[in-house]
Amino acid sequence: MDTEVLAFDIFGTTVDWYTGVAEQAREIFADLGIDADPGGFALDWRDRYLPSMARVREHERDWAYLDTLHRESLDDILAERGLSDAVGEAARARLVHAWHRLPAWNDVAEGLARLRSRYVLAALSNGGFALLTHLVKAAALPFDCILSAELAQTYKPDAKVYRTAASLLDVAPSRVLMVAAHGWDLEGAAAAGLRTAFVERPREKGPHRAADQAAGITADLKVDSFTALADALLS
Amino acid sequence: MDTEVLAFDIFGTTVDWYTGVAEQAREIFADLGIDADPGGFALDWRDRYLPSMARVREHERDWAYLDTLHRESLDDILAERGLSDAVGEAARARLVHAWHRLPAWNDVAEGLARLRSRYVLAALSNGGFALLTHLVKAAALPFDCILSAELAQTYKPDAKVYRTAASLLDVAPSRVLMVAAHGWDLEGAAAAGLRTAFVERPREKGPHRAADQAAGITADLKVDSFTALADALLS
Repeated sequence: MDTEVLAFDIFGTTVDWYTGVAEQAREIFADLGIDADPGGFALDWRDRYLPSMARVREHERDWAYLDTLHRESLDDILAERGLSDAVGEAARARLVHAWHRLPAWNDVAEGLARLRSRYVLAALSNGGFALLTHLVKAAALPFDCILSAELAQTYKPDAKVYRTAASLLDVAPSRVLMVAAHGWDLEGAAAAGLRTAFVERPREKGPHRAADQAAGITADLKVDSFTALADALLS
Repeated sequence: MDTEVLAFDIFGTTVDWYTGVAEQAREIFADLGIDADPGGFALDWRDRYLPSMARVREHERDWAYLDTLHRESLDDILAERGLSDAVGEAARARLVHAWHRLPAWNDVAEGLARLRSRYVLAALSNGGFALLTHLVKAAALPFDCILSAELAQTYKPDAKVYRTAASLLDVAPSRVLMVAAHGWDLEGAAAAGLRTAFVERPREKGPHRAADQAAGITADLKVDSFTALADALLS
């Protein structure tokens, strides 16, 4: 494929946002004496993610940082659940910050370390540049650079995000392999001229909600872990 | 100082461009059978660096990538030296690429590794995003992220470069410490509201040309190595 750059989606693909957000929410709710299901809360919050970004992408509002979108949808969820008074400013800031510190899936560190010997490894997420820098640093993931949708001032799957990434790394889009656990992301990448690799993450949405499955996805490559990706690309 | 981010200049401050460019030029000239002083050539090339960027910064021309500026000044130097015919397209591309692969000063890897435990470490150079990504990867330097003047579409010491860096990392400019071996860079950083650390690199311009000396520089901190910077900031 003459691939030079591997661009990795982060939330769900590289890190387990469900477990990470649910565990941090569990602690924060416990501190406040609130009885709430943290897993259901994490899912509810994440469900607002794509619609909130779509409003930016479709120019219904100006550019807004992911932290801002997370905060707005958090405020909505808390209001709907009758928790507006129970969860104050400091706890809301802690909850938004939960997305800055999430655990990597078990296969990620080894897979990236092996892939880094041959490819430039970039994080390419809708998370903001600062958020991604903090997340990657805290999880000690060996990316060569951070690329964020923020650099294109729009969100994936807008083609501009993928093309900005290729342009900043001074390669043709076809030299970039987008690695993601979501069909919508790979469709956007393919439309922008990138190659695509699907990583199946069946537990992305926790134990009770189905995640994207390989069978329903169109991609140049399909694997079930970053180590399997390394096996496929380095063989 | 409540510093959260350390932003490092690269050419001269982190890597030894003089030795790196001269050694690669020596090889390329030898391959072509050209008798030229590679150290003098490296200095001559670097002398065109600030003026070429100033034309972009002062809007005398549109944004141009550092590789483009390097190529233009290379073409000029070769013409002045009567080497236009002797150095063909492939050799010129190799020479421009020399700036993508330069050796770090001896104290850099240890200093960065220590500083990374407390601070977010960013490369902040006039080199392009791809150039810096390649350079940092080849030298295995543990930066947390790559920031380039390219992201601001102008060059240091334009305040926009420093402010874009702080903005992308979501901190006030005063939370960023700019680390550089050049007074002009630190003056630009200070004017943009950043804190400043001068690193004296007496051999930056090789054995026969004086580099910026601590005595003539205004900065919040002055050191002679990255390990000394770690000593000062982590004590």
